[in-house]
Formats: sequence, C-alpha cells, structure tokens
Amino acid sequence: MTDTNTDSDGSTSNCGAKTDGGESSSSSTESKCGASSSDSSSSTESKCGASTSDSSSSDSKCGASSKKESTEENVGATVDDFDADPGQLVAVGLGPGHPEGMTQRAKDALLEAEHIVGYTTYVDLIPDGITEQADDIYDTPMCGEVSRTEESIDRALAGNDVAIVGSGDPNVYALAGLALEILESKGATASMVDFEVVPGVPAAQSCAARLGAPLVNDTVSVSLSDHLVPMPEIESRLHSVAKESFVITIYNPWSRKRRENFEKCCEILLTHRDPDTPVGIVHGAGREDEQVLITELGELEELGESEIIDMTTTIVVGNEETYVWDDRMVTPRGYETKYDY
Amino acid sequence: MTDTNTDSDGSTSNCGAKTDGGESSSSSTESKCGASSSDSSSSTESKCGASTSDSSSSDSKCGASSKKESTEENVGATVDDFDADPGQLVAVGLGPGHPEGMTQRAKDALLEAEHIVGYTTYVDLIPDGITEQADDIYDTPMCGEVSRTEESIDRALAGNDVAIVGSGDPNVYALAGLALEILESKGATASMVDFEVVPGVPAAQSCAARLGAPLVNDTVSVSLSDHLVPMPEIESRLHSVAKESFVITIYNPWSRKRRENFEKCCEILLTHRDPDTPVGIVHGAGREDEQVLITELGELEELGESEIIDMTTTIVVGNEETYVWDDRMVTPRGYETKYDY
Repeated sequence: MTDTNTDSDGSTSNCGAKTDGGESSSSSTESKCGASSSDSSSSTESKCGASTSDSSSSDSKCGASSKKESTEENVGATVDDFDADPGQLVAVGLGPGHPEGMTQRAKDALLEAEHIVGYTTYVDLIPDGITEQADDIYDTPMCGEVSRTEESIDRALAGNDVAIVGSGDPNVYALAGLALEILESKGATASMVDFEVVPGVPAAQSCAARLGAPLVNDTVSVSLSDHLVPMPEIESRLHSVAKESFVITIYNPWSRKRRENFEKCCEILLTHRDPDTPVGIVHGAGREDEQVLITELGELEELGESEIIDMTTTIVVGNEETYVWDDRMVTPRGYETKYDY
Repeated sequence: MTDTNTDSDGSTSNCGAKTDGGESSSSSTESKCGASSSDSSSSTESKCGASTSDSSSSDSKCGASSKKESTEENVGATVDDFDADPGQLVAVGLGPGHPEGMTQRAKDALLEAEHIVGYTTYVDLIPDGITEQADDIYDTPMCGEVSRTEESIDRALAGNDVAIVGSGDPNVYALAGLALEILESKGATASMVDFEVVPGVPAAQSCAARLGAPLVNDTVSVSLSDHLVPMPEIESRLHSVAKESFVITIYNPWSRKRRENFEKCCEILLTHRDPDTPVGIVHGAGREDEQVLITELGELEELGESEIIDMTTTIVVGNEETYVWDDRMVTPRGYETKYDY
C-alpha cells in the first residue's frame, strides 16, 4: 500500500502535468489507486467483445487486459519472455482534451493501433469512432502509470501495434520517457517496437491561448510535484528563472499533499517579482469545467485555497514586461522598441 | 529601407521561431524583404478571381490586398478609419508544417475565415481544400511581419473574418502578442474583433518527438535572436538556466548576422555542462528537408558551420541526467528512483 500510495502521488503529479491539457478536477481528486475501476474493466471487456477480423488473437490477448491478471502475468516480463515478432509502440499526445484539439496525425496513429492503452480519463477523450476500431482498449484509473506503460510495452512485444495515450504532449512530464526507460529495463530496444512519439498541443500552449499572448518571449516550465524531483531542486530552479525575465508556466501547482510546495513557490516568485506581476490561471483548459482567471502575483497564494487551483490547473506567471489589456495577458516580444505602430 | 532591413532581421528571427516547426532552409535564407513576391501577388490575385457568394465585397477588398496598395491605404489606419462592424481575428498555429500536424480546430478556424493572411511559406502549408474556401489569401514573403499583422487587423476592422497563420504555436515567439499590441495601437480592442488564439504544436514538441523523450522534466525555451532582446540579457538567461537542471530548447540558433550569438551560447553552456552532454539538433522538423542529429555539447559550436544549423533549426540541450539510448535522447522523469522496472 505504501507503494500504491506513492504511485498514487506520483501518478497524480504526472497525470496533473499531462492533464493540465484538461482533466476534470473531480476525476483527478477521486483516487482509485490500485483498484481496477468498474469503468475500466467493463470498458475493457466490452471492447474485447467487439471482435474484429483479428478477433481471435485479440480475444486471446484480451484475457490479459484486466489490471489484475496483467499484473500477475506481465510485470517484470523481459524481452525473452516474448516469442512473437514485436508490434509497434506509439506514444500519442491528445492535446488539450477535446477532440478538436487532436492533430490528424494523432487520430491516424490511434486508428492504426490494434490496442489503445491509457488512463481512463484520457481514453474517454478519444472519439468513439476511433476507439471502436481498436481490437482492445486497456484503460485503468488514475495512478498505476508505470504498470500501465509496462502493459503497453508488453502488448507491443507480444506482437500488437499499441498506442499509449496521454493528454497534452508525450514529452511534457509525460509518458515518452517512461516508455523508453521501461523498454530498456526489459532488455528490449526502441527500434524493436519502432517506438514513435506523436506530439500534441501541450497544456502551456492551450492555457496561453485562453489567456491571450503571455508566452511570446523566452519561457520556462516548472512542475511543483516533488514526488520525482526533490523540492530543494525545484526551489533552486524557481529562484534561477524568477530573477531573469522568463515567463514561468507552473504545472502541478497543488495537491493536498503538496500545498507547502505551492506556498513556497509563491514566496520565491515574490522575492524576485512585483506583487502586481500579472498571473494567468487556467483550470481544466478546453474542458467543461474550464475556468480562466487573470490575477496578480500578490494574490496567488491565497487563491491556492480556492477551487480554481488544483492538479488540473496550469499557472502562467508573467515577466516584468507582461501586462493585462482588455482581459488578455500580453508579454511583448519587443517589436515596440523597433517599430512605430 | 533601414526600417525594411530592420524588419527583415526582425522577421527572420521571429519567422525562425515560428518555423522551427519546419520552414525549409532555402526559403528562409532567400530574402525578399520589402518586395512583394510574384508568388504573393499572383496567389492573391488568382484567389481574388475565385469569386464566392461574398465575391462582390470580397473583390472590393481584394483591391487592397496587394502589399503595395495596402501599405498606402492601411498602414497607420486607426479604428476610427473603419465604419464597418468589425469581423473576427483569429491567430492560428499550423503546428509542425505538414497538414497532418494541424489540429481539427485549426482547420475549422481557417475554413470559417473569409481572409487568410500569412507568410507565403506558411500559407503554402495549408491544404488547398481549405485555402480554396477563402474569399481572399494575403500572403507576403519573409519579413514584413509587422505590416502583415497590421494588414490582418485592418481587414478584420473593415468587417472581414480574418485568420492570420504561422507554423508552430501563435504564442511561441510568434504573432499572438504582436496582433494584440497593434490592435491596441490602433485604438481598437481585442474584444472588438473577438480575438482568439488557436494553439498549435510548437517546434520544441515536434523536435523532441523526433529525438525521443528529451523534454520530460523541467524545460526552458531561449531564442538567440538579439533583434528584439539585447544579447547581454539572453546571455544572462542562458547562464541562469544552464547551471540548473533545465533541458534547454534553443530557437533561432543561427543566422549570418548572428553567428557570434551561437558561439557565445555554446561557450556559456560549456561553462555549466559537460562537453559530453547530449544535444539534439532538428532541422526543418516534419518537412522534406528534415535532418535529425544527436551529438554532444562539445561538438555543437563546430556544427554551427554546417548546413544542419540555420534559422529553421531547433536545438535541444540535455541536462546532466539526459542520456542517449538506441538513437533516442532520454531525460529521465525520475521514476527509476521510485520504482523497480
């Protein structure tokens, strides 16, 4: 259970990053770690039921697609445990969280995949027209990210073309790296599964678009999750960029386990930037529960107590030139110093 | 002409950023600043010829759509010079540069626009099926970015629904901010034209996907263009992030005018990071002339002399944990410290 809890926190922080693209706060706060949710199993079974031309091989694999069995059968499996010709593994970024935010390339990658693996909330973002084409969908609730990624790799090594999905971009605090690390640990290679990353629109971009133009100069992304990075290192990074003119995008600003990190972050930012520095807050970007607020740095810590700031929130902290005009947050690129307009 | 030259350099630097999504080096190096290219005018005229139900108003506007006339008629126009009800202005990010990299939302925004405005190279990235639906296409060669953006605003204020396009994301060293700054300078407001930003996949994400998983921890983006930001400030930013564990994405690494900036950047990075730090170089991501190279920081400055590094190149500099495995660049998120796999 300790591991599960750790995993929970870990996945929460990581999910938060991937789903700053927009997971709903309700699903992000309700924790079902370790337990295979009824959603998950039912969606898995029903999908397995939907046979395709490839149904026989599909069905045989479906047997392994409930979280419990896969844990027994697959965790710790190495490349030598598979005798099939490996299939392809693609890490697909879904973008902000609404189907219109997906790229055509992402849709095509999902349509080509025999198996789609992901956190239930992300899999639910995929249009039915796409999921119905898959031989199997393996989705599990929040957490279990490492085992979910391993499951996707085992399925690829077993000969299936697999897509593992996340919202935002697979490179932003997300699955692309974990997949490569687990492949290596299994004695496999990325080439063996023709590993590919399909990029998506990251949360920073989705949120910046809602705020106006806060990111048009040099920028930095910092996650406040100290599950995988020690807090002193995060603090040091914040100090180093806050004293320069970087616009700062903050991922994973808040969880019940990490409120001190958020408070510490606000404190550090205020040691380098004025309290009236514009700050944009976007909760659940592109989702039904989206909330957008433009405020000032001096007000940020107090807002940590409100519902707008949770693991699904992305915060954009302006630099000394950032201003608010007509409800938009604008960071000048510098043209005004060169041109008359 | 001084302004034009300045504009040229400015747009080069800015275009470079937007087109790290993938403009071909040939078009980026051939400079047609100030001059309205035959491409541009012909495409404008031919599109004007293609009348639509809205053709009469369209044609009347087309008269103003060649760069020369628009300069006489529109530059410096303020909101009071327009008596029409303003149309909508949307800044659309096209993503990496191939149609499959566009989001559905970007396609829809372009289909809804009556006028599409952009740098010729970007407009050429848009599928014909979309551009053929527009009443008018206003495209100009590299440079003239400020006047192109002003043209898009004047057309919106004149009552047209206008989309101004760029590759990558409109918030990354790109048009979103310039559009808002010019709107304000004209005494207009963003609300008046219902200004909206449609995000796209930024160059950093497109390039990271080609490299593997270099960006899965905290990251920073720095442009080496000193046209709009003084070089001492850029150097100070590089020092501050290179001594921390940020993975650094470098935009606009190189131009004939800026080779010293690139050399200085390599020198600064080497004062904080080992010469064997993995560095990923992606030229023309997602384009026909795409080139990908994974090398070491110690080799970077010398590569500045080769064709792979120009204004269309994005460079990803790893942190001390980044490693190269199976031709992929991997920055661990930190799971290996918490989980056995």
